[in-house]
Amino acid sequence: MRNPHSNGNVPKLEEADDATEENGYGDGVILGLDGGATSTVCVCVPFFPYGDRFPEPIPILGRAVAGCTNRNSVGVSTLSTETAAKDSLEHVISEALSQSGSDKSHVRGVCLGVSGVNHPSDQGMVEHWIRWDMFPSHVKVYVQNDAIVALASGTMGKLHGCVLIAGTGCIAYGFDEDGREARASGAGPILGDWGSGYGISAQALTAVIRAHDGRGPETMLTSTILKALGLSSPDELIGILHIYEDSWTYADPSWARIAALVPQVVSCAEAGDEISDKILVDAADDLALSVKAVVQRLGLCGKDGTGSFPVVMVGGVLNANRKWDIGKQVSKRINKHFPGAQTIIPKVEPAVGAAWLAMNFLTVKNDVS
Amino acid sequence: MRNPHSNGNVPKLEEADDATEENGYGDGVILGLDGGATSTVCVCVPFFPYGDRFPEPIPILGRAVAGCTNRNSVGVSTLSTETAAKDSLEHVISEALSQSGSDKSHVRGVCLGVSGVNHPSDQGMVEHWIRWDMFPSHVKVYVQNDAIVALASGTMGKLHGCVLIAGTGCIAYGFDEDGREARASGAGPILGDWGSGYGISAQALTAVIRAHDGRGPETMLTSTILKALGLSSPDELIGILHIYEDSWTYADPSWARIAALVPQVVSCAEAGDEISDKILVDAADDLALSVKAVVQRLGLCGKDGTGSFPVVMVGGVLNANRKWDIGKQVSKRINKHFPGAQTIIPKVEPAVGAAWLAMNFLTVKNDVS
Repeated sequence: MRNPHSNGNVPKLEEADDATEENGYGDGVILGLDGGATSTVCVCVPFFPYGDRFPEPIPILGRAVAGCTNRNSVGVSTLSTETAAKDSLEHVISEALSQSGSDKSHVRGVCLGVSGVNHPSDQGMVEHWIRWDMFPSHVKVYVQNDAIVALASGTMGKLHGCVLIAGTGCIAYGFDEDGREARASGAGPILGDWGSGYGISAQALTAVIRAHDGRGPETMLTSTILKALGLSSPDELIGILHIYEDSWTYADPSWARIAALVPQVVSCAEAGDEISDKILVDAADDLALSVKAVVQRLGLCGKDGTGSFPVVMVGGVLNANRKWDIGKQVSKRINKHFPGAQTIIPKVEPAVGAAWLAMNFLTVKNDVS
Repeated sequence: MRNPHSNGNVPKLEEADDATEENGYGDGVILGLDGGATSTVCVCVPFFPYGDRFPEPIPILGRAVAGCTNRNSVGVSTLSTETAAKDSLEHVISEALSQSGSDKSHVRGVCLGVSGVNHPSDQGMVEHWIRWDMFPSHVKVYVQNDAIVALASGTMGKLHGCVLIAGTGCIAYGFDEDGREARASGAGPILGDWGSGYGISAQALTAVIRAHDGRGPETMLTSTILKALGLSSPDELIGILHIYEDSWTYADPSWARIAALVPQVVSCAEAGDEISDKILVDAADDLALSVKAVVQRLGLCGKDGTGSFPVVMVGGVLNANRKWDIGKQVSKRINKHFPGAQTIIPKVEPAVGAAWLAMNFLTVKNDVS
């Protein structure tokens, strides 16, 4: 139930003429966008102009999904891929607005979270597409990296606390009350992001190869992973991995396939395989350590270490909901260090987090534009 | 003194008319080639037809160096790169023969070691270039991977024992008396080849990033590595490494640059940095473990574990000759397991190993062609 209002009874703007200003569509709408590596989601929600006093769950007036807007993930930036990304954004925005029975003139603010956007130049370019090419200049447009939007999805748009993302990659990102930020991990697959889907899978594959060439103990991972990849021997694995190394990026679908071996590692651990268990314990330790580093740098836990703050946990590694529950193990470790930490698994998708963020940015106190 | 006869007093074929058949040029010559990622070396030596009864050091009649013959390291195989590789081979062979005062008609055998050649199809193609395009069909031509040639460079061409290569990558490779072979490691940088130059450097960079984002202890590696790379902060490091990941292969010069950080890690360890010391200890453990795996699979140490066999140690990581001596630490660990192991650092370059190998292949007992 990530998106309870996206299907069926979507309240249309024209049906809501009696809405008061406080809860309603008379104040216009907000667009929240989540531009991932493989698809872009856009939601349209009513604008609530009074800070965080909006209803939960927030009504989703429209929702649309389109192809890729992340120009990094399609390789070298070219005019044609930028055009494709822009077209895709335009399409998804029009579709969400049309579903909501609204149009561009009702839009008060737009927030887009993008995984490939870290450099101000990228941010500026995407902002330019949206602000100048799709909306008039008075519409507020915010482009943020996906970690910030993920945090917002668990805090109803408030940029305070820490977010831990563990999907293909992993990163911990945090903000204190004064807007100072800090990050840990997220340095990429080569440099020891062991809690990521990639990190867990790479260690599992390493264990298979070590068992195969006599450097390590036998493990259930060998048969399980070979079966999952449709291979008959670890030698074939080495061949495949050498090919993958030649096109080594997170956005590469073949690597996403490797990072997708986490369920196999979890199954082996659940079946009693010690090697798999150790890989998952190390991953949980490392993910908790990333959160700890961010929390301590920002002093989120207060001077006595018991202060309350949210830790938003996002991504397939943390939310797999299996018997061997990585997310629960990470929470346990975080709470051991910080009894006031409140781990949150967001009930809404990142696009809604982006919409909340736009709404908070539009109120005077949080306006960072 | 890798190649004592390559300059100056090279004995010319025409000056050696009085040579006996046993030690001499009257039996023709052998070409040994080492086709690395960045250059190809060719040596021309006299053919000694009686097995391993040749003089040491073996006289080098000619030696030449040319550009790349490894078609994998120049990216996608195209006709033009194959032509360039072939031209480069022809050039280096002609030059070595001309230095020796000899010509193609004197050549009895050719052996080429190539790092990118693992597949029979590649091997066949390179063999075809040499055998049919440069020499008549009666000339014996052997194309081998670089690990085998490296082993031969330490054993005067005898394929028995184990070779450990630790340069940018690492691999252990071995042969028993019956020609059975085994390997360990060499699965590439992603899968835990921690003893390689890449592995050591990646762990050092990971330590720098962990210290920077608060996950790990401070280390001398931070200032040392930033200085070596001309950077002012670890954040810049993350930016650079993300770029490198997009072109992630051993042959990529930017990764060779990363793998070249081993001297910095050694310096920090020598100056007392504990993190650096642990990285090097782990590397030595892992390299020794690779040798152990190969030796045990092949039973090189005999049934009681004390049998004598050579372990040839090749590559910049093992032969750096520093106070913190990784090669010596690996030897120590190997000898603890196998008191009969004789670690050998070859006195000759791989091209000479290739020549010895050709010579041994040409004798009846070892002829594998």
